[in-house]
Amino acid sequence: MSTIDSYMAPVPLDKASRLINHGPTVLVSARHRGIQNVMAAAWACALDYLPPKLTVVIDSNTATRALVEGSGQFVVQVPTVAQLQLTYDVGTRSLHTDVEKLAHCKVELFDIDKFDVPFVSGCSAWLACKVIPEPHHQQQYDLFVAEVIGAWADTRVFSNGRWHYETADPSFRSLHYIAGGHFYAIGNALDVDMTK
Amino acid sequence: MSTIDSYMAPVPLDKASRLINHGPTVLVSARHRGIQNVMAAAWACALDYLPPKLTVVIDSNTATRALVEGSGQFVVQVPTVAQLQLTYDVGTRSLHTDVEKLAHCKVELFDIDKFDVPFVSGCSAWLACKVIPEPHHQQQYDLFVAEVIGAWADTRVFSNGRWHYETADPSFRSLHYIAGGHFYAIGNALDVDMTK
Repeated sequence: MSTIDSYMAPVPLDKASRLINHGPTVLVSARHRGIQNVMAAAWACALDYLPPKLTVVIDSNTATRALVEGSGQFVVQVPTVAQLQLTYDVGTRSLHTDVEKLAHCKVELFDIDKFDVPFVSGCSAWLACKVIPEPHHQQQYDLFVAEVIGAWADTRVFSNGRWHYETADPSFRSLHYIAGGHFYAIGNALDVDMTK
Repeated sequence: MSTIDSYMAPVPLDKASRLINHGPTVLVSARHRGIQNVMAAAWACALDYLPPKLTVVIDSNTATRALVEGSGQFVVQVPTVAQLQLTYDVGTRSLHTDVEKLAHCKVELFDIDKFDVPFVSGCSAWLACKVIPEPHHQQQYDLFVAEVIGAWADTRVFSNGRWHYETADPSFRSLHYIAGGHFYAIGNALDVDMTK
């Protein structure tokens, strides 16, 4: 495991929702009893500002599901255009059928002190999450509710509580999945006239 | 109320999740006992493919909340870059304090036969939704689960089950809200190598 990404800086928890407010496809990583895995999830969404909460749909077929249920923790991270193939690959391969999935998908993980969850290198933002047990929704809808207990971002694309996609290298842009291997990158900044 | 938008075409329900899979900020509209309203929601997310379901966070402070709870129905629609100011305005003004909110925000509504919900003109996609009552999540998290019972899109930007942002007029692009009046439009198409 590598050390912490060098451009990674903490994000105040009251700004954590901004990391996923624009609806990017995310990577979900988890570890339980020495087994760790990473999957892609297009169905992740902010749920509250402070304490920050989010929802994520984790299908019962996925290997990550058991790790999340077993450990009660996971990381939601925002992959970049540079990680397009990695994001697709971790979303289509399964640890159930490929025990070397992470190596085959070129995923590198790292740890952060005091957080017993695996973080994916090269992402633009990371949210360490603790499951709020909601058994009915987990069983009925595969929907997990979690509190965000730590947040970080790559300062080259997110700083001072704001994304800077308009000035950062385009390879840092977030991915927004549709279907069938077809994604969009996030695009141009638009600011409304708030004086109207 | 105007008639149905002329470029609007039904979307098969098994493709409905694609309309919001890329995480756009949406407009939520509802009607109850003759009162109708529209709000903006950045926290809406697909939940299942077929029957299609979605989640949306509707704060208890909003006037729309009572209309959704009273009628058990609402519409999630995808606004466009051309509706940037409208989207911001319906997200910041409240019917509680401005009874002429819809007129002030330049919102035009229309009806669709057999659906007793108000649709917002000029959007790129519309999902008619029926609340699946989940009182605990509604009270605890302001989170609504709903089944999508009808879906439509503007054929100039979505057809054959796909968004065509890359070839459509840029004014059709979806909006992705961050905070403080700051949005991004959806950007460039990216296709992975599915043969790898």
